[in-house]
Formats: sequence, C-alpha cells, structure tokens
Amino acid sequence: MTDRLTSQIAFLNEADRLKTVLRATKILDATRRENSGEHSWHIALYAMVLAEHANRPVNINRVIRMLLIHDLVEIDVGDVPIHSQGGDAHGSTETQAAEAAAADRIFGLLPDDQAREFRILWDEFEAAESDDAVFAKSVDRVQPVICNLETGGGTWPEYNVTRQQLEDRVGWKVEKGAPAVWTFLKDRIAKWFAAN
Amino acid sequence: MTDRLTSQIAFLNEADRLKTVLRATKILDATRRENSGEHSWHIALYAMVLAEHANRPVNINRVIRMLLIHDLVEIDVGDVPIHSQGGDAHGSTETQAAEAAAADRIFGLLPDDQAREFRILWDEFEAAESDDAVFAKSVDRVQPVICNLETGGGTWPEYNVTRQQLEDRVGWKVEKGAPAVWTFLKDRIAKWFAAN
Ligand SMILES: [Ca+2]
Repeated sequence: MTDRLTSQIAFLNEADRLKTVLRATKILDATRRENSGEHSWHIALYAMVLAEHANRPVNINRVIRMLLIHDLVEIDVGDVPIHSQGGDAHGSTETQAAEAAAADRIFGLLPDDQAREFRILWDEFEAAESDDAVFAKSVDRVQPVICNLETGGGTWPEYNVTRQQLEDRVGWKVEKGAPAVWTFLKDRIAKWFAAN
Repeated sequence: MTDRLTSQIAFLNEADRLKTVLRATKILDATRRENSGEHSWHIALYAMVLAEHANRPVNINRVIRMLLIHDLVEIDVGDVPIHSQGGDAHGSTETQAAEAAAADRIFGLLPDDQAREFRILWDEFEAAESDDAVFAKSVDRVQPVICNLETGGGTWPEYNVTRQQLEDRVGWKVEKGAPAVWTFLKDRIAKWFAAN
C-alpha cells in the first residue's frame, strides 16, 4: 500500500507540471494563454456536455478518462500548435517519437498495472481509431475553434490560417466524431473567414 | 439540435471563467497561485489514480464527473479557502446560499435535462453523504495538503494553521473517504508541524 501510494503521489505531483505548459490559444477573456492542465479539464467537461452529439455510440466515461490524461506528455514535449509550421509540426514523426518517450517516462511513475492501463488508454487516443477515441479527438479539436470564434479569430490571424486549412487540419476530425457540432459551427466560421 | 447546442456551448463558454478563479494554494513550482479550472482537472486525475484507496466501493466515473463540475459555482462566489476566517468562512450559511444561487444560474445555462442532471450531481457532492461524494470530498481535500507539503507548508504559515486545526478541518474528511491516503501522509504532516 505504501509503495503504491508513493508511486501514485509521485505521478500526481509530476502531473502538476502540466499547469505550466502553455498553449497557443487564449482563455476566453483573452488576458493570457491557456495552459494544458485547465484545457484538459475544459475538454473533459466538453465531453460530458456534448456526449449526445457523438457520431457513434461511445463509452463517455472512457472518453473522459482519455481526455484527462491525453496531454500529460506535453510536460516533456510542450504543446505543438496544430497550425504551427504550416500545419506540419503536429503529428510529425519526431513529435510522435518524443511523445511516446514522454508517455513511457510519465506513466512509468505509476505502479505497473496502472502504468499499463494509462498507456493503453493514451495509445488508443493517439491512434484515433476506436469510436471513443474519435469522439475524444473531435472534442479536443473543437474547443480551440470555439475559443477562436469567441476571441475575434484568436490564433488564426497569427498563423495565417485559411478556411480551407481549418477544414483540412481540424474540421474533418470534428465532423468525424461529432458531425452536428461542426455543422452548428460552420456558419460562424464562414462568416469569420469572409470578414477577415 | 441547434437550440441544445446553443445552450451547451453557452454553458461551456461560461465555464471557461473558472480558469480565472484563484485559489489559496500555489502550483507545485510555487510560481503562482492555482486556478480552480486546473485544480478541477488535477483532482479528477487524483480520483482516477487513487480510486483503489476509497474506503467503500465507489462508482469512480460518477466521482470524476462530480469533481469536474463541483467548483463551477466559484465563478460567481470565488474560492473560499478552507483555513480562512479561522476556518469559519467555508461552509457558512452565507457561502452555501451564494453557491446554491450560482448553481441555479450556471447549470441553468444548459438544456433542462442536463441542468437537472448536473445539479443533482452537485447537490450530492455538497451533501457529502453518499459513498461517491465522500470519496470525491476526500480527494478534493487531500490535494492541497499534498501541495502544501511539497511547497514547504504552502498556505499553512499564512493562515497560522495548527496540526489540530488541519485534523479538524481536513484530516477527518480525507480519512473518511480514503483512510489509507491520510495514514500515508500523517508522518510527513507530523514532521512538518514539529519543525515549524
Ligand atoms: Ca475544490
């Protein structure tokens, strides 16, 4: 018991560092950039609220767990903005290898059984193939879009994002997991890009 | 569908403000105070990791959901530190009434069925009677203790907290929901208070 708790608390203390990883998007009052800890909370809440819009039946509890742990690798790797380097940095072989190493190290702080369990869940999220992972990804992708719409375009001008690039890098992933949500946003997105 | 999404996204945007509510405790690198959004993420992760130490069988998915929404009322009321005003502010009649009004307003942004569902879950957490709520409370209470231990006492010196006050205000609640975790921490707590 003591050994397990020592490992578990070491992991939870290490996880605290996610609160210092800054993302490209700002919080909605635009006073500062969002950190990956509060982002993880927000999208877990997104999943709870938007579950009914999942394209296929999902186990929402697994989705929430995936979202709670999916960004922990950023403690080592940092956040790689989706529109950075012309959309090429996110998902590059280098980034993927670094994130896998981070997953080994960070989940490895847990007792073995939990390390395995968390790693399997993280691998499933990254593979983006299961229904749960597809919906989790759609939620993770749509939150910054809504954030940008609420803050006058947010990071889009900074990265010179076109409407087509938004569709190619983000839209189809949201649509795949939560089609009604993307349809709902399309009008506002079209209007923003028409005006900017 | 459009009506529901309009309400759901209004709620999720309002929830963003929890990222601007500051707590008494600092994040572990001690560079700044923790906000209630990232705190909510951290304790949901605590629940995932520490579930095996629950005193009685719990539905960990319900516990996680409770923890994801439990602090939203702080958007209107702010965080009331547990050791503030000699331990009297937290849980006072005034605070409880203000939090109930905040719950009405904030959960009321959701479609009716979800507003009811979230409110029931929040009421259950606040009542701290069900096994799920007792464990959720123990997790919510133990995170700042660990945080204080990791940061040289954290907020304890500031509020002149004694070891007995920590037991009275926090310890028994952690012990009730997760006795092994409190036992595990007792040595470190005793050492800190003996040295300070
Ligand atoms: Ca709390």
